[in-house]
Amino acid sequence: MELLRVTYRIGGNAADAPARAEAIALEQTVEVPKPVALREPFIAREIVGRVESVEPAPDGGTHAVIAYPVATTAFDPAQLLGVLFGNTSLHADVQCVDFDPPASLCEALEGPRAGVAGLRDLTGVRGRALTCTAVKPLGHSPQALADLLRTFARAGIDVVKDDQGLANHEFCPFEARVEACLAAAEQVADETGHRVLYVPNLIGTPERVFAQLRFAEKRGARAVMVSPMLLGLPTFWELCHRHAGVPVLAHPSHAGAVRYAPELLFGKLLRLYGADAVIFVGYAGRFGIPRATCAAIAANLRAGWHGLAPSLPVPGGGIELRDVAEVVQFYGHDAMLLVGGSLQLEAGKLLERSRAYVEAVRAAPG
Amino acid sequence: MELLRVTYRIGGNAADAPARAEAIALEQTVEVPKPVALREPFIAREIVGRVESVEPAPDGGTHAVIAYPVATTAFDPAQLLGVLFGNTSLHADVQCVDFDPPASLCEALEGPRAGVAGLRDLTGVRGRALTCTAVKPLGHSPQALADLLRTFARAGIDVVKDDQGLANHEFCPFEARVEACLAAAEQVADETGHRVLYVPNLIGTPERVFAQLRFAEKRGARAVMVSPMLLGLPTFWELCHRHAGVPVLAHPSHAGAVRYAPELLFGKLLRLYGADAVIFVGYAGRFGIPRATCAAIAANLRAGWHGLAPSLPVPGGGIELRDVAEVVQFYGHDAMLLVGGSLQLEAGKLLERSRAYVEAVRAAPG
Repeated sequence: MELLRVTYRIGGNAADAPARAEAIALEQTVEVPKPVALREPFIAREIVGRVESVEPAPDGGTHAVIAYPVATTAFDPAQLLGVLFGNTSLHADVQCVDFDPPASLCEALEGPRAGVAGLRDLTGVRGRALTCTAVKPLGHSPQALADLLRTFARAGIDVVKDDQGLANHEFCPFEARVEACLAAAEQVADETGHRVLYVPNLIGTPERVFAQLRFAEKRGARAVMVSPMLLGLPTFWELCHRHAGVPVLAHPSHAGAVRYAPELLFGKLLRLYGADAVIFVGYAGRFGIPRATCAAIAANLRAGWHGLAPSLPVPGGGIELRDVAEVVQFYGHDAMLLVGGSLQLEAGKLLERSRAYVEAVRAAPG
Repeated sequence: MELLRVTYRIGGNAADAPARAEAIALEQTVEVPKPVALREPFIAREIVGRVESVEPAPDGGTHAVIAYPVATTAFDPAQLLGVLFGNTSLHADVQCVDFDPPASLCEALEGPRAGVAGLRDLTGVRGRALTCTAVKPLGHSPQALADLLRTFARAGIDVVKDDQGLANHEFCPFEARVEACLAAAEQVADETGHRVLYVPNLIGTPERVFAQLRFAEKRGARAVMVSPMLLGLPTFWELCHRHAGVPVLAHPSHAGAVRYAPELLFGKLLRLYGADAVIFVGYAGRFGIPRATCAAIAANLRAGWHGLAPSLPVPGGGIELRDVAEVVQFYGHDAMLLVGGSLQLEAGKLLERSRAYVEAVRAAPG
């Protein structure tokens, strides 16, 4: 059985680390209590992650290596992220620090198509580092950006990319910018023989990004740039492997996105983007979120907001059956409780425990 | 001019906070030194963010409120994230804690289509909190999951969702799972009159997610779930507003993704997913990344790895012209330097500064 090995750095008390590593191995695969997972031999053998080592980390904390059967990833670019770090990313003191994919996973995801060699071929640069700069700032017209590019090209810079903040603005539409910059690059190539590699920035929802790519390639762009952590890695993979004919540069914008406060991310951003119901990990359960944060998330999801419909708050993350009534009181009636593994805890008692859950919610004063 | 107000929590020394807030206002809009941004009246007036207040935060640190002209967002779901937190998310001690979008932005993004009212209509639940659970764990067959659902439905639970880890696995294909669970829900509805709302989990690249949605809707699913921070918020928006006819539940999986170590995210994940070149913020510049981290990122991008092509390391993040030679020595020749705003620093000297940059890289021993 091929294994995907992942290293986590766990903070807090080192004595707790072995148990926490076991909890991660469950969380990232079956997300039920261990006895539930072990009931089925197939699941115990071929699904559940295994803790391989728990050692002090060189920089403090503990490093735990967990081996996941690679089949859990379904060899899918999105599901892989879920196995690597899905729910565990919500523990503030756990970091995903390394992973070691088996060959089959690398084959499935494919990696760079052009890579270093392709970019050296495109630019003709050998035996030295490459030079790159950006046309910016946001607010310039396409012609002003093309003028900048012309100067950079005349100076002999190898690669000129769009600033990652250049989108499809009214004052600088994507198409006009790409055409002006490509024309400027050609003009300098005719003058000097040096053809700078102009790299347009693609940004938007998948439909828009793929349309921008088609436009840029058709007009002669020989490379493009996106911000993968802003578009989402699965969209990035599809861009690279199902759409792009040219090399793709990755920009780090939004790569630190967890630093959104939970009240903002779960309470406002997801609602603004269209979530009808938002599941979040709450105070009751295994993630230890403060009550005040939970109350703020729920309040934000329901508040009046420029006419947007409210979203349904869905607290989850390990609510136990015994806590249900209290949780309903806390959030009130305009909420949905998500109780998962707790219902399956006692073998053969699924119906009783599920009924008890339903009764507790019906009976709670809210 | 309509404004998008964003609140950041800035750590570190409170005396530095006003200057850091000014730096964020530039970083999130023009990403050039202030004198460059102020040269153009249109940019100074209608693009650059303005610091409105800098106050002690109740929980320590400093809260800075910055107002951005809303036009900088291009009213685009992806570009909005770039303006909110793009590059600034890479500062470890800055958190994005709140935002206040103007009505025009809410109108453009639209928010929930069904929301609380739509979910109450779908489930018929009034005057109490809703109940939800999940079919799991990963590893069960479609029939085993449908059996669980049948029991939950008989117990009277309102909503049963897929576990967010159920993808399109060989041992439990998406289509078979959705059909089995929908059939089980109908069977119990016929028996008892209670029609549980079964919510399939969609996961994959955009093409796969949209195909899964079409399948689920066609077979009668009345709601779906995705993990927006795993798919990416722009893909989530497009799903909600361009594809889905049914309500969408948001799962928090991967919402803490910044806790990937930079060596892993920039050095391995982006390469595995297909980046031909990876821009990252390095030690030389305004983000203060340790040299050892930068060296590890570059080494990971170039290392032999199950036959994957190497990706080109592209250090950026505020390299100054005077540091270019040293940076080339640090990374060696298989790298591309990204020098941005520094080239535009002296008005009228763009060509000279660009030439000096090119010469410095050509001359560096590497």
